[in-house]
Amino acid sequence: LTERTAIDPLADAAVADVVGGMVVGLGTGRTASRGIEALARRVRESSLDVRCVSTSEASERLARGLGLNVIDFSMIESVDYLFDGADEVDGSMRMIKGAGGAMTRERIVAHASRRCVYMVQREKIVERLGTRSALPVAVLAFGLCAVRAELRRMGLNGVVRRTIGGDLFVTDNGNLVIDVSFDDHDVEELALQLDRTPGVIDHGLFLTEADEILVDGPGGIERLVREGVAEST
Amino acid sequence: LTERTAIDPLADAAVADVVGGMVVGLGTGRTASRGIEALARRVRESSLDVRCVSTSEASERLARGLGLNVIDFSMIESVDYLFDGADEVDGSMRMIKGAGGAMTRERIVAHASRRCVYMVQREKIVERLGTRSALPVAVLAFGLCAVRAELRRMGLNGVVRRTIGGDLFVTDNGNLVIDVSFDDHDVEELALQLDRTPGVIDHGLFLTEADEILVDGPGGIERLVREGVAEST
Repeated sequence: LTERTAIDPLADAAVADVVGGMVVGLGTGRTASRGIEALARRVRESSLDVRCVSTSEASERLARGLGLNVIDFSMIESVDYLFDGADEVDGSMRMIKGAGGAMTRERIVAHASRRCVYMVQREKIVERLGTRSALPVAVLAFGLCAVRAELRRMGLNGVVRRTIGGDLFVTDNGNLVIDVSFDDHDVEELALQLDRTPGVIDHGLFLTEADEILVDGPGGIERLVREGVAEST
Repeated sequence: LTERTAIDPLADAAVADVVGGMVVGLGTGRTASRGIEALARRVRESSLDVRCVSTSEASERLARGLGLNVIDFSMIESVDYLFDGADEVDGSMRMIKGAGGAMTRERIVAHASRRCVYMVQREKIVERLGTRSALPVAVLAFGLCAVRAELRRMGLNGVVRRTIGGDLFVTDNGNLVIDVSFDDHDVEELALQLDRTPGVIDHGLFLTEADEILVDGPGGIERLVREGVAEST
């Protein structure tokens, strides 16, 4: 890590491996935004030729405002490097995401990405997923009540997300979000059940997406690397 | 079957069991439209109090034009009876649907329905699914190229559906459709893979939805009933 570390060690670590020519995926949310700012600094300072794809309209606006070159993901087959935040991480690098409501696009870009790096503060590391965060489920507005009833039968109770102003929260894809809680569900089984539920567009269980997780704690930045993924220096 | 059979035996058979007080799901497509017309006749002739939910904007327009009471499905938890068409049916009552592009809403309503009845002409009965029809896959426009590349890796090649005018075909939910062909895929496995592919909203494999299938052939209307489903008279 270079002297840029002084500005934002976690975010700077997340973009340290970006090199010229890459297509870089931009996550969504407060931590991802710090990554976008760090990337903009890096691109500016090193005059890197980097194209970006964004997982949300908000991140796209931020990135463009900082001078980053954002291209249309719908024309892209694969991405070199993705950085994003997460709401919870367990000891198996499984995550809950979606507090920002962008999990559908975040997962699509993650699956198209060769290397996915997630940034979290130490307190987001949990023993069991679902401890700190609700599990967001994106549903087609058309099926709202029917899907909610189906989730209830699966033991998932929750509320339809609203904006601070009290309106229904609508994702960039025009869907609604139900934030559910779960107890003793096996998360692998739960993810599969949700994947197979008609009207569920996506959900916040990201069980296999993380190649690396950067944890910001009292002792500095710790890098967790999934087994089978070659660690870069 | 009553004398109304004379008008449209297949469609009349599909709505013969509708009784007052029911919430009835309306399918989408040419055959489903015949069912909507038959339902309108039945409701008119018998002064039935029936509320309908629709699987597409087109069917809703048709039904309203015929005087049917169409209510908002997003407020409904369960449906009493659904009739719809299908593009292919195999010997295990598994179907391909989606030629009309409405499969996402069709499946949501089907899963909320106590009894699902599908109407087909005899020539739509096939030995193997995929023989006559392409398999429609609804994808989020955001992920078009990435999902298409993923489908190719699964051995599914296809084309993005366009309107007769040459524009991209857009579903009622704002998604795009890729019509793919498949060969020696196991359809259960394929459906599961598609359910788990990020960016795939839904697809045309309806393997478990049909409780009954009405087949219109030279010898009249044949009714296939799924084992375990009580046949009604």
